[in-house]
Amino acid sequence: MTETTVVSLQDIRDAAERIAGATHRTPVIRSRTLDQLVGAQVFLKAENLQRIGAFKFRGAYNAIARLSPEQLSRGIAAYSSGNHAQAVALASTELGSHAVIIMPADTPAAKLDAVAGYGAEIITYDRYTENREEIGARLAADRGMTLIPPYEHPDVMAGQGTAALELLEDAGDLDALVVPVGGGGLIAGSSTAAKGLQPGIRVIGVEPEAGDDTKRSLEAGERVTIPVPRTIADGQAASVPGELTFSVNRRLVDEIVLVTDDEIRDALRFGVDRLKLVMEPSGASGLAALLAGRLHPAPARIGVIISGGNVGAARLAQLLA
Amino acid sequence: MTETTVVSLQDIRDAAERIAGATHRTPVIRSRTLDQLVGAQVFLKAENLQRIGAFKFRGAYNAIARLSPEQLSRGIAAYSSGNHAQAVALASTELGSHAVIIMPADTPAAKLDAVAGYGAEIITYDRYTENREEIGARLAADRGMTLIPPYEHPDVMAGQGTAALELLEDAGDLDALVVPVGGGGLIAGSSTAAKGLQPGIRVIGVEPEAGDDTKRSLEAGERVTIPVPRTIADGQAASVPGELTFSVNRRLVDEIVLVTDDEIRDALRFGVDRLKLVMEPSGASGLAALLAGRLHPAPARIGVIISGGNVGAARLAQLLA
Repeated sequence: MTETTVVSLQDIRDAAERIAGATHRTPVIRSRTLDQLVGAQVFLKAENLQRIGAFKFRGAYNAIARLSPEQLSRGIAAYSSGNHAQAVALASTELGSHAVIIMPADTPAAKLDAVAGYGAEIITYDRYTENREEIGARLAADRGMTLIPPYEHPDVMAGQGTAALELLEDAGDLDALVVPVGGGGLIAGSSTAAKGLQPGIRVIGVEPEAGDDTKRSLEAGERVTIPVPRTIADGQAASVPGELTFSVNRRLVDEIVLVTDDEIRDALRFGVDRLKLVMEPSGASGLAALLAGRLHPAPARIGVIISGGNVGAARLAQLLA
Repeated sequence: MTETTVVSLQDIRDAAERIAGATHRTPVIRSRTLDQLVGAQVFLKAENLQRIGAFKFRGAYNAIARLSPEQLSRGIAAYSSGNHAQAVALASTELGSHAVIIMPADTPAAKLDAVAGYGAEIITYDRYTENREEIGARLAADRGMTLIPPYEHPDVMAGQGTAALELLEDAGDLDALVVPVGGGGLIAGSSTAAKGLQPGIRVIGVEPEAGDDTKRSLEAGERVTIPVPRTIADGQAASVPGELTFSVNRRLVDEIVLVTDDEIRDALRFGVDRLKLVMEPSGASGLAALLAGRLHPAPARIGVIISGGNVGAARLAQLLA
C-alpha cells in the first residue's frame, strides 16, 4: 500500500454516505465571545455531541459496515478502555453483529457498564501481567472474529475524516483546521478531507505537552517513541504514532502545537462557562490551543474539532474545581 | 388589550425575521439513549447554546429592535440579576443603544462582570431596603429610558416564542411541547407558536415543586401568589405569574407538571454524562420532567426546550457532587 492510497477524499465521501443514517450530523457551534478572544472566526465541530459522545463512532461504524455478512456473523473484536470500545460495541449491535471488547480489569465500572449497555461482551485482562494483543489474536483465530483497531485501518480513518468533511461543508472556506492528535486517525482522515476540498488550508494538530510523539516524529521524519505520557488528556496518551496514520500525516499535517494540562483545564472551564458544552480533556485540546494563543500567524477563519465529551459528571466536577 | 391580541403566530413569525441575523438558530439535539429511557422520540431545543446562554436574548432583542431611533438614543433600562440582564445589555449594545441594568448589590461578581462585559452600565441597589421598581421608574422619568421587562411585554413574548417556532420547523409534527415556566413568557410565546402551527399539540409547562404558582393559578382560574420559592431553579423562582403571560397561558397551556430539585439535579447529571450539554437548573426542568416520568399519557414525539445554561463552572461542580 503506497502512501497515496491509504485513504482518499473519495473514500471519505463514500464513508459519509455509508454512515449517514447511523451517525449524527453534529452541529457547528459559533461563539462571538470566542471569536473576540481569539481574534478570528471560529467554527467548532461538536463531536462531543456525536453518538457515544465522540468521533470514534464514525470510524468504527464505517469499518464494520464494510464487512461481509459472513464476517458480521462471526463477530467483531476490539481492545480499548475508551471511546473506541463504546463505538465498536454500538456499531456492531446496530449492524446486526456482536462485539467482544477486551478491556483492562481495572477499567472504571461506569465505562464497563456503558460498553455492556451497547450490547457487547466484555473480556477483562490484567494489564500488568497479560498482553491484550495476544488475547485479541487468540479471539480472532479461535472464533474467527474481525479485529477493528482504533485508528490503524483505512476504513476507520475514512470514517473519522467525515467529521472534517461535514465541518467544511457547513462552515465554508477555512484558513486552518485544528484537530486533536492521539493515535493520529482523526487528523489523518480530516487532513485528507480538508486538503482534498481546500488545498490551501493549514492543518494543525494539537497534542498535550507530555504526549508530543507525533510532533517529534514529524520533526524527525520518522516515527519516534516516547515514554507513556502522563496527562489529563487520556485519549491523547499515545507513545508512538500509528504506522498508517503517520504515513498520511507526514504528508498532510502542516504543524503540531502543544498545550499544557492547565491550558486544557482552562478550555474545559470555558466550555462550561461560555459554550455550555461538556468536553473531555482530549476533546478540548484544540480549543485550548486557540485560547492559549498557540496559532502563529493567527488564521482568520478556523475550524476546530471538539473530538469528544466522555468525561463523566464526577470527573468533570474534579477538573473544574 | 384583549386576550386574543396579546401575541399572535404572525407576531412570532415577524420576530423570527427581525432577530434572524443576531440570534443563533440553536440546534435540535437528539439522543437515542434518551429516547429509549423515555420511550418516545425526544427533540431538545438547545437554547443553552443561544447567545448569552439562554432564550432571553430572543425576547430582549426583538423588543429593543422595535424601538424608534429616538428611544434607542435615550437608552434602555432593565432590572434583573439573571439572564435577562445579559440579554438586554447585549441586545442594546448591538442595536446601537446603551443599557442601564439595575441589579442587587449582592449579585455575584461574575454576573456583574458579564453584564458590564456586554457594554451596559450597572446600578446596584440594596434589595433589603430599596425598591428596584422605583429606581427603574425614576430612571425612565429622569433619563427618558425605555424599560424592557423580562416577560410582561408582547414583543418580549413574541421573541421568546421563536424558540418553539424553530423547534417545530426543524422537528416536524410533535405530540407535545414541554417548556420550563418561570414568569411565563417563554411558554406564552411558545404555546402561541405551537398551537398556531399545530393546533392538536399538547403544551406542558414545568415548574419546580416549590414554585408552583402557575400550576395553582391555572387550577384556580386566576393568578395566585405563593411565598418566594426556595429551589435550585433560580430562574423559575417566581411567586406569581405575569398578568399578560397568564392571560395567554390560561388559554393555551394544557397542563403544568412539577419536578423536585433532586430530579433537576439528575437531569443536570444526565446532561453532562450523556448529552454533553451544560444546563442551568431552570433550563433542565423540562428534561427532568421527562426523565422522572411526569408525562401521562406519554406522547410519542416530544419537543423540549432546554431554556438556558448559565450555571457557571464552580456552581455546576457543586450541583454534580
